[in-house]
Amino acid sequence: MIPDHAFFILCHMKKIIFPILLLLSLQLVAQDKDKKQILGILDRQTKSWNSGNLEQFMVGYWENDSLMYVGKGGVTYGYAPTLANYKKNYGSQDKMGQLTFQILHVNKLSNSYYQVVGKWHLKRTVGDVGGHYTLLFRKIKGEWKIVSDHSS
Amino acid sequence: MIPDHAFFILCHMKKIIFPILLLLSLQLVAQDKDKKQILGILDRQTKSWNSGNLEQFMVGYWENDSLMYVGKGGVTYGYAPTLANYKKNYGSQDKMGQLTFQILHVNKLSNSYYQVVGKWHLKRTVGDVGGHYTLLFRKIKGEWKIVSDHSS
Repeated sequence: MIPDHAFFILCHMKKIIFPILLLLSLQLVAQDKDKKQILGILDRQTKSWNSGNLEQFMVGYWENDSLMYVGKGGVTYGYAPTLANYKKNYGSQDKMGQLTFQILHVNKLSNSYYQVVGKWHLKRTVGDVGGHYTLLFRKIKGEWKIVSDHSS
Repeated sequence: MIPDHAFFILCHMKKIIFPILLLLSLQLVAQDKDKKQILGILDRQTKSWNSGNLEQFMVGYWENDSLMYVGKGGVTYGYAPTLANYKKNYGSQDKMGQLTFQILHVNKLSNSYYQVVGKWHLKRTVGDVGGHYTLLFRKIKGEWKIVSDHSS
């Protein structure tokens, strides 16, 4: 025999568990969508680089004076100076080479922030170069943008 | 003459504005406390380094296998391997030298995450070295811990 209170709990459980499961599912769907968008941005960046288009490559970054890029030259602030650095360091097809990214981690920090850690590699006739990056993505006006990039 | 509805709005405004101001104040107090704790950790790390105590220096880091350190040698995972790297690279007082941090940014990402960007410098008899770091702090069991460090 199942006691009455057990029936009561069973009958009410679906009122509690179903909304929780629904919320969790929605969360996972949203997270999956975020990750796909972020990976899509990085994929488009690679394609832009490999077609020699640095302006297009920059689209992944936040178009703002507060964009922060930490590289071997120290800290650079702003979209235009970051693009200028890329142009200075990779001004020719030989120097640009063929870029590949290997994504190591896509970590959700909050609904507005993701951390992405990965490897970058440039296959070049003038000698390959590569390293790692730690990116901070922020959702701004519904779009994911790189707001800080530490590359080495 | 002030119309009746203006009185109504004025009388009810304090019921709306005061709680908002109170919430904002509490937020700012909490944020200030977070920043102080985080800066305190970095200050203690400097002092530990400068007293030659790498174990004590490591206390700022998350004692977990998922701790991530990105340096010139690539990615290192885990507390023990990160400490082992520090011991390998800075095994003597000459190599350790005197550490100074210059904090550039302490950015709140959420109630659980802060990003810290700064400069590090080692004044040494064997030649100074320095660079930048991007840290991710996470509040774990009420304490702020570095969960990822990209240093270059």
